[in-house]
Amino acid sequence: MRIYDIIAKKRDGQELNEQEIEYFVNGYVNGEIEDYQVSALLMAIYFNSMTKNEVSILTKYMANSGDTVNLSSIPGIKVDKHSTGGVGDKTTLIISPIVASCGINVAKMSGRGLGYTGGTIDKLESIPGFRTSLSRDEFIGAVNKIGISIVSQTGNLVPADKKLYALRDVTATVESIPLIASSIMSKKIAAGADKILLDVKTGSGAFIKDFERCRELAETMVNIGGSVGKETTALITNMDRPLGNMVGNFLEVIETVDVLKGGGPEDLKEICLCLASNMLYLSGKGDLSVCEEMAQESLGSGRAFKKFEEMVISQGGNVSWIYSPEDLLKNIKPYNVVSEKSGYIVNMDTEKCGIASMKLGAGREKKDDIIDNLAGIKFHKKTGDYVNKGENIATLYSSNRLKYMDSERSLLEALDIGDTKPEKQKLIKARVTKEECKLF
Amino acid sequence: MRIYDIIAKKRDGQELNEQEIEYFVNGYVNGEIEDYQVSALLMAIYFNSMTKNEVSILTKYMANSGDTVNLSSIPGIKVDKHSTGGVGDKTTLIISPIVASCGINVAKMSGRGLGYTGGTIDKLESIPGFRTSLSRDEFIGAVNKIGISIVSQTGNLVPADKKLYALRDVTATVESIPLIASSIMSKKIAAGADKILLDVKTGSGAFIKDFERCRELAETMVNIGGSVGKETTALITNMDRPLGNMVGNFLEVIETVDVLKGGGPEDLKEICLCLASNMLYLSGKGDLSVCEEMAQESLGSGRAFKKFEEMVISQGGNVSWIYSPEDLLKNIKPYNVVSEKSGYIVNMDTEKCGIASMKLGAGREKKDDIIDNLAGIKFHKKTGDYVNKGENIATLYSSNRLKYMDSERSLLEALDIGDTKPEKQKLIKARVTKEECKLF
Repeated sequence: MRIYDIIAKKRDGQELNEQEIEYFVNGYVNGEIEDYQVSALLMAIYFNSMTKNEVSILTKYMANSGDTVNLSSIPGIKVDKHSTGGVGDKTTLIISPIVASCGINVAKMSGRGLGYTGGTIDKLESIPGFRTSLSRDEFIGAVNKIGISIVSQTGNLVPADKKLYALRDVTATVESIPLIASSIMSKKIAAGADKILLDVKTGSGAFIKDFERCRELAETMVNIGGSVGKETTALITNMDRPLGNMVGNFLEVIETVDVLKGGGPEDLKEICLCLASNMLYLSGKGDLSVCEEMAQESLGSGRAFKKFEEMVISQGGNVSWIYSPEDLLKNIKPYNVVSEKSGYIVNMDTEKCGIASMKLGAGREKKDDIIDNLAGIKFHKKTGDYVNKGENIATLYSSNRLKYMDSERSLLEALDIGDTKPEKQKLIKARVTKEECKLF
Repeated sequence: MRIYDIIAKKRDGQELNEQEIEYFVNGYVNGEIEDYQVSALLMAIYFNSMTKNEVSILTKYMANSGDTVNLSSIPGIKVDKHSTGGVGDKTTLIISPIVASCGINVAKMSGRGLGYTGGTIDKLESIPGFRTSLSRDEFIGAVNKIGISIVSQTGNLVPADKKLYALRDVTATVESIPLIASSIMSKKIAAGADKILLDVKTGSGAFIKDFERCRELAETMVNIGGSVGKETTALITNMDRPLGNMVGNFLEVIETVDVLKGGGPEDLKEICLCLASNMLYLSGKGDLSVCEEMAQESLGSGRAFKKFEEMVISQGGNVSWIYSPEDLLKNIKPYNVVSEKSGYIVNMDTEKCGIASMKLGAGREKKDDIIDNLAGIKFHKKTGDYVNKGENIATLYSSNRLKYMDSERSLLEALDIGDTKPEKQKLIKARVTKEECKLF
């Protein structure tokens, strides 16, 4: 078999077979196939896409290209959750304790943020003392003891994705549905869960903005999950404005605590309840409506907050910051961004909001940048709200006050203020299962 | 400027500007841009093609990426000729002496064969003693003395094409019209001639088989020539059967001598007269009809043959082999291929005929293979001829008799024999100039 023939076949729009995909993935990981041949193949895939069968096979061989996590020593059905990422997306921090408090074990590996947002691991590490690098035994032990642990990825998980992603990143082949789908799903499959819930973000703050392409991605990933015997559900959710009011690592922990204590902003609460009930449903806890009541009850009774507390203590975090998180911010001198005119916020360019937050220190411009845990934005107004000229729209937080001007400019640019109140948008746009794509 | 943005721009179907193309070509030649990024760009070009303007700019920067040949010390207009290659294509050996004998200096650099045929240089080197590696002074001196010299390429001509072609060859991006056109034309432009005649082969033995794609290639190259002030004409000629009756390096020299002496097969003679008269026309020798008479007269009077003799002597070749070429073959034991049935030869898969010849030793399977100068095929029957069962169709020549069986099998597979005499095909299919594409 020759990689040349595989490139030519894909270039000519033909379907690759299992032997060819296996040869390509293994040969690339082993270093037998050159970067310059793989980048030509990736560009051909960008143009000619892949069939459902091809992308399932690709994902299978990627998932098995390195170590895989074995969660069999943890009893019960393990459900993993993945978000395609957005601005203010702290849902993992909220739904994991909800689900764990309902008796479902949560053994979760998470990533750091790429681009303008911190990831779940960055957010947890903003809690002083919180350890995200646990040994395998500590990780499994914590789950078996208290039902929850969230750690950073360890081991040589999916080296095929690491190599392919690095190459895609410099060859303009990132934005390809089969390549995105196989990248996400290979990591989820290797991480060992039995079932998978996907939160595919759509809108101006999402990686893929267009709804139809999000739907294609969601359907592709749900199909991949099924092909390896891991039932997968995807929700397509709105990222046309930041999720919740807080953006930034420790600020998002503060908002997490608010929601877990029964408060917090309505949009964040709605999405978290939907995600948590779908995880409970995948775990076999009953109908969706039963699962939603269960999640509601977990929040209302304080059981979810208690589970979060247990996790923080279990992983070495200083729990006092959870009770009075404002204390951590007391040395920060915040900066108020005021509106330059009166009117409704018609639209927020959410990506630009994320960039404004990154400029404060909350995300990484370059891979090795160090995050300012306390940096970020608290929004007082969001899309649909009326704002008066001179009224406070948002408060900026940074350990470096010199960063406020540049961030403020980005933030004001991100906002469209007009005379007409915009129509309210749905937060949950679709639910994709093996059987159907249900639009809301 | 970033190569990533250039890849993404081409991927998205936008036109690259001069600065971007310059950055890409120079950066690649300098080693600043990686192979894996260039191969992604080449695949994007394969899918989205290039505008006339883009391909002209690309060719210009490729042509100037290394040394260029300065022919200004040779008086008069210098016309170069290039063929896209086929089976039995010995036209350069015939038309160069014709043109030189009409008073037009021929200072030609040629290549060795790639794939299943020898190139002009391989054919000349099959004449014992013939030197194709001349110094620059020897080369110019020979042209100024006798009006003709054909040498192998020297110096660092078009390093951009060397690098790009090597990369295309392993990434399935060879078959792209703008990339083929820029590869051919950059070399012709760097080789220093004032005007260029192109022989674009079409049909089963051609690199590009489909006529419409040949026409696109021809028009693209004619346009490139015009864009750098080098008037270019392209003929699209038939390669649906081998050209002439002889295929193989020294066998083609024998047939060259036949034509130069006024004999030889009609198809070869017709194409050579057409090419020669177009070269004379580009040199300003008068109307095409005047130029054709001039070429006819050169052949008929023996002046063309005399010029060929002079060239062989000038470059150290043993001219006695030109007078009695059969002597060189006397140690070869030829092998006759006979027809397995009676009927008309309806079709010859010319590529397969070329492969049959390569299997005898006349071409290179791998780059470093040594050519058997005396190997090849003499056809007694070609498309349109009637053949009886058991009649000799072709004679095979090889220094290694073990090669006959395998070659015979390929050759018989290449022939379709049927009951109906096929329609005669035109040899010259089109003539493409800046002004028009005239179909014949």
